[in-house]
Amino acid sequence: MTEPGPWWGWGSGGGREPLSPDATAMLRNLVGEASPTAAVEIDDVTLPPPAPLPDSISRAVGAANVLTANRDRVRHAAGMSYPDLVRLRSGRLEDAPDAVVVPDDRDAVVALLDACAREGVAVVPFGGGTSVVGGVDSARESFQRLVSVDLSSLRSVSVDGRALTARLGPGLKGPEAERALAAQGVTLGHFPQSFERATIGGFAATRSAGQASSGYGRFDALVASARLDAPAGELRTRDTPHTAAGPSLRELIVGSEGALGVITEVDVRVRAAPETRRYEGWIVPDFESGAEVVRHLAQEDAVPDVIRVSDRTETRVSLGLSATRGITRRALDAYLGLRRRSDGCIVIAGWEGGREAVARRRALGHRVLRREGAVSLGAGPGRAWHRGRYRGPYLRDELLDLGYMAETLETAHTWSRLQELYRAVRGAIESALASAGTPGLVFCHLSHAYRDGASLYFTFLAPSRPGEEIERWRAVKQSACEAIVSSGGTITHHHGVGRDHRPYMRDEVTELGLEALRAVKERLDPAGIMNPGKLLPS
Amino acid sequence: MTEPGPWWGWGSGGGREPLSPDATAMLRNLVGEASPTAAVEIDDVTLPPPAPLPDSISRAVGAANVLTANRDRVRHAAGMSYPDLVRLRSGRLEDAPDAVVVPDDRDAVVALLDACAREGVAVVPFGGGTSVVGGVDSARESFQRLVSVDLSSLRSVSVDGRALTARLGPGLKGPEAERALAAQGVTLGHFPQSFERATIGGFAATRSAGQASSGYGRFDALVASARLDAPAGELRTRDTPHTAAGPSLRELIVGSEGALGVITEVDVRVRAAPETRRYEGWIVPDFESGAEVVRHLAQEDAVPDVIRVSDRTETRVSLGLSATRGITRRALDAYLGLRRRSDGCIVIAGWEGGREAVARRRALGHRVLRREGAVSLGAGPGRAWHRGRYRGPYLRDELLDLGYMAETLETAHTWSRLQELYRAVRGAIESALASAGTPGLVFCHLSHAYRDGASLYFTFLAPSRPGEEIERWRAVKQSACEAIVSSGGTITHHHGVGRDHRPYMRDEVTELGLEALRAVKERLDPAGIMNPGKLLPS
Repeated sequence: MTEPGPWWGWGSGGGREPLSPDATAMLRNLVGEASPTAAVEIDDVTLPPPAPLPDSISRAVGAANVLTANRDRVRHAAGMSYPDLVRLRSGRLEDAPDAVVVPDDRDAVVALLDACAREGVAVVPFGGGTSVVGGVDSARESFQRLVSVDLSSLRSVSVDGRALTARLGPGLKGPEAERALAAQGVTLGHFPQSFERATIGGFAATRSAGQASSGYGRFDALVASARLDAPAGELRTRDTPHTAAGPSLRELIVGSEGALGVITEVDVRVRAAPETRRYEGWIVPDFESGAEVVRHLAQEDAVPDVIRVSDRTETRVSLGLSATRGITRRALDAYLGLRRRSDGCIVIAGWEGGREAVARRRALGHRVLRREGAVSLGAGPGRAWHRGRYRGPYLRDELLDLGYMAETLETAHTWSRLQELYRAVRGAIESALASAGTPGLVFCHLSHAYRDGASLYFTFLAPSRPGEEIERWRAVKQSACEAIVSSGGTITHHHGVGRDHRPYMRDEVTELGLEALRAVKERLDPAGIMNPGKLLPS
Repeated sequence: MTEPGPWWGWGSGGGREPLSPDATAMLRNLVGEASPTAAVEIDDVTLPPPAPLPDSISRAVGAANVLTANRDRVRHAAGMSYPDLVRLRSGRLEDAPDAVVVPDDRDAVVALLDACAREGVAVVPFGGGTSVVGGVDSARESFQRLVSVDLSSLRSVSVDGRALTARLGPGLKGPEAERALAAQGVTLGHFPQSFERATIGGFAATRSAGQASSGYGRFDALVASARLDAPAGELRTRDTPHTAAGPSLRELIVGSEGALGVITEVDVRVRAAPETRRYEGWIVPDFESGAEVVRHLAQEDAVPDVIRVSDRTETRVSLGLSATRGITRRALDAYLGLRRRSDGCIVIAGWEGGREAVARRRALGHRVLRREGAVSLGAGPGRAWHRGRYRGPYLRDELLDLGYMAETLETAHTWSRLQELYRAVRGAIESALASAGTPGLVFCHLSHAYRDGASLYFTFLAPSRPGEEIERWRAVKQSACEAIVSSGGTITHHHGVGRDHRPYMRDEVTELGLEALRAVKERLDPAGIMNPGKLLPS
């Protein structure tokens, strides 16, 4: 494995920035009082003893690559969802992998899957461990033995500069992949908030979307072809730019979340590394008019690479919590003073690419932004957002320490039904928090603009109640998911399904859709060892 | 059914334009002498008597919607591939559907599938009947009874002008769909050569690509969601702009070629109807440099909506055969005289959209075209191409009457391997024709530009040998397909798999990929009644 990384949350490996006293005060004011709680130390975590594993596993990958120390098991026992972090911080893990297996190469992965299938050992593929939907949890279902397969040794990079494609190993973390690509003058342009820790294989397995995906495209659109090593064998799609050869097996591999096999190679489309980046803040009177601005940008082929609109609450909170609030606050106050308004919604717009292309596309974007009533706040807020774009998960660590529940969820719909979806989900979360006696705070931004719609990304904060964290989280999550389903939105725009969303897959793809996926799983993974308890409802 | 349409080829329903004496002479000169042959009249076609069908089929769709007249059976017995046309023209059909069933609506489709599954009657979904890969042939395999399901009654149109989406019935033909969309100010922008006769359901079922797909996107990229009615029930995907909810079932419906069920509803993304269209001709010294021009256009975000480069032979032949050759010839001669060259390759570039956007994108495209060495031939050749863009199939009718074999096939690869693929396929076809004693003519154009590659579209012409047409076609087709496979190209970029390409599906998606598709088919179509003998090799 490349680096130890954190064992819970984002910042336990470093990079934390304590909240300022002002921010903490604002939080108390808006969300309510909370009682700080501390995480235990990693060595104090209690977990069940590991079940003994068959020798064939050691033979498949080499004994030195089978790790059974508690530290390794703890680091691979959960992802980064709120309930995951709560369980980890509590120091009491009800389950963890019996071993962490670290195959040296693809052949070792194949041998491992073969051994596990024969012996009936469950397999959880593990990339960066950043799933926020329970995708890497040790869910044994009916299995007595379970291993986490850490893919961090599969990190090859090969660039085709003429076709602008790259063949990447699944274990490459975001920054490592980008460094290797940058050395050859190209970029993948995939920058999700989990960029620092998530992997290429994870991006593909979960249909990741990045902050700049409005421009560069979602990860599933960047995947030209892929190889899945399943217990039943190898599934490889052709590395051609497109094909009409039947239903898309590439699109079956992408999004398979470890439930069909291990993604051992991904061919991606890359672009010339940008010469320049221009990020800016704009302001609109309200969320609805902000959505209209983005709709026009998307439908007039004028969408920036990054585009997001915060609702009023998120605008207010981000100004209060962010380390960069000074710059934005000043710009915003100037605007509000000018307009004699007391609030508004911030829009972040960012362009990347060749200097000339950025100038041209930005001028086009500006024209639409202005025509639709947005007012420029200048580059300050944009640069501040860009600097802080990976800070969210670190901030959540702080919030958990301060005693708050902090969680996010996302959905998407067409422009025609986006506001209805927004109101329904925000209302459902607010009601669920209120009925638990802790109203808390719900806010949202729109991002990932398409010609036909966009995604909505919700955050909710509330004082946590020690010992009842997961139960309370579940009540809110369930209300939100039910509101999404009944408003016709998708249960997930880019977090994936994992364990948390699988009860809603029937609504998403109909019963026959589930049956189709189950049929594929039974054929590719006859023993059902791959990531049990995820993706498909039982 | 909306209109009778042709019973073989494109022009037997009207629209033929006889070749000029000059063109006929050129053909004899380039391809060789051939003996004209005539098609029999539709009423003289002999076909096996229809097997009696169970009453439950009439009950499902209404007795008036079960057609057993020979004319109806003949019109639904085959598609538009060269071997299909040869069989039809010969007047001897070895097989045809026992009946043509025309369900009034989706409920009737569902009832029909139920009846057919219970009674073991094979079902061939039929849209426009324009498959050129045997996709609608009456291949019974082990079934005693087979019906063709003509979907021409399912033609609803509903536009969401805010989300720029439209919900379309599968039976809508291209022009009818575009007229209905144009009435609401939008366009699908999907213009394959089969546009006049092919249907929305067919576009989705076969992953169609249109002449303007470099700009508007391939049909699979235009499909936001779809409904598949399978014998086992309904599979419907959500009409959201995107989702991360697991493997894509939309991408399983798209490309399913009638082998999983009937596509009864398609939600597509539309665009504002174009204010203007600008089509132009350009010339480059050779095919390789033409491909480089297109690569730069695609990779620099400067690709026109239509872009195609003819190789030298296609350039020469299209000037000789086309009714519009006068305009292009004059422009070309002027260029060649100026450059003291005897040949070159024609590039067609076309832009569509709002006036301002077209002006901006065209200026950008021109800059790249000129920088990469292309020389403008002006608007004449572009307009001529645009006027004649649906003439290919009519021309083929003429060629068959004149006694020539005329067939097309297509593939795609990355820019890095495109020339290798071009040489291999052209060489394979030339060798196969030569070894049969009739060298003939092979030519190609590049089209459908992606950032990572493009498609190649081959045409071959040779004198046919009466009675041996299909055998000779098969030898050439097989050589071409083997060259495609061994060069790593895709077996089909937009014609689909059907019956002709299914032997190559194993190379395309690996054995495990086939197994995955078979598993889905077995679940969705347990009796195996849907379009037997197509898509999946047995």
